[in-house]
Amino acid sequence: MNTSANSNQPAVVLLSGGLDSTTVLALAADQGYRCHCLSFAYGQRHCHELELAKINAARWGVKHLVLRLDLDAIGGSALTGDLAVPKGRDFAVMENEIPVTYVPGRNTIFLSYAAAWAEVLGATDIFIGVNAVDYSGYPDCRPDYLTALEQAVNLGSKAGREGRSLRIIAPLLHFHKKEIITLGLGLGVDYALTHSCYDPAPDGRPCGQCDACLLRGKGFSEAGHRDPALSAE
Amino acid sequence: MNTSANSNQPAVVLLSGGLDSTTVLALAADQGYRCHCLSFAYGQRHCHELELAKINAARWGVKHLVLRLDLDAIGGSALTGDLAVPKGRDFAVMENEIPVTYVPGRNTIFLSYAAAWAEVLGATDIFIGVNAVDYSGYPDCRPDYLTALEQAVNLGSKAGREGRSLRIIAPLLHFHKKEIITLGLGLGVDYALTHSCYDPAPDGRPCGQCDACLLRGKGFSEAGHRDPALSAE
Repeated sequence: MNTSANSNQPAVVLLSGGLDSTTVLALAADQGYRCHCLSFAYGQRHCHELELAKINAARWGVKHLVLRLDLDAIGGSALTGDLAVPKGRDFAVMENEIPVTYVPGRNTIFLSYAAAWAEVLGATDIFIGVNAVDYSGYPDCRPDYLTALEQAVNLGSKAGREGRSLRIIAPLLHFHKKEIITLGLGLGVDYALTHSCYDPAPDGRPCGQCDACLLRGKGFSEAGHRDPALSAE
Repeated sequence: MNTSANSNQPAVVLLSGGLDSTTVLALAADQGYRCHCLSFAYGQRHCHELELAKINAARWGVKHLVLRLDLDAIGGSALTGDLAVPKGRDFAVMENEIPVTYVPGRNTIFLSYAAAWAEVLGATDIFIGVNAVDYSGYPDCRPDYLTALEQAVNLGSKAGREGRSLRIIAPLLHFHKKEIITLGLGLGVDYALTHSCYDPAPDGRPCGQCDACLLRGKGFSEAGHRDPALSAE
């Protein structure tokens, strides 16, 4: 445990219910933050993830707010609309091409809400589980974007203007998926209680072939563990 | 008319139903843009403005999307919560102090949605009616914030990464309110069909004493016009 540095400081943690954000929750809690988790029902076809976000927020005993967003009214993504989720993509392609599962504006909207809530809570630290190594090529998971948005959020907020600068903390940004899994296991994450698949069966069972499933599978394989979320199969 | 430059190019216009954003709609339409207006029901106590946004979108014959946001779940503002709206503030104070009517994250969230919609529409231009001269001191109405957010939005979007840079256009940023009114009258805006008050009566009648009412009154007075929205009184 490493709870001394941030003893009971409030922080906002963006929690999707996926592998990365659940690990971030465990990490922030381990660092002593008083976490306030924020999730979004944004019309995602994999809304099963929200049930697991709820379970993990309860497991860590933290406040959890789920907001409803009209991102499906905007559209433009396979995750919120009728486009098919790509299956069986090559890892090299994932890193270099923005797929149709990209959701326009998603992380900017999520982080804007998180910053707003942080201001109201008197928190300065906002945690997000984005990753720019084993990932799907999303532009809103990249370091230069996060730095620019942090600057904008501070210029546009009362907190930032008054010297209580908000920080966007992405502790997994440069981690390989296997490192994230190893970290999370050490922090007590139960990955059976996380969901990554973009295109699950109605009961939440992962498809195994979308980018998220493939990256997760690769991570568990490289970490030398079996994915416990697959144990029911 | 000045319709040659942007003949039928799509643009997203943030339309609150207030004086500034309605003027911006008129201006963008006059410049030949095919406007797509975006409004938000965010739990604002002056939701009367949305009825006027709807009327103006119809008056200009443009597409209009009204999204519901859970900003009242975040709170922290007199516009969405139980704090009282300040009345009778001095203009010099307004320019130098961030009031309790500041809504954490508001313009960042609004502009994020606008950028998302622009991407889906294939538009690059996003219009917002913010003003940093006769205004209430909001940090998210200032030029350095808008520049920083534009940069972040481009780094975080597929459009920006692929060279179709999004532009946040704030044509009224450096205008005095009287200049905005003069401009709008020349473009056919009917200011009787706009709403500015933060704390209206249940029938939408303005209070006359909040920042928005005082700035609007000053603008009409300096422009040498009577505010037509007050004609019923």
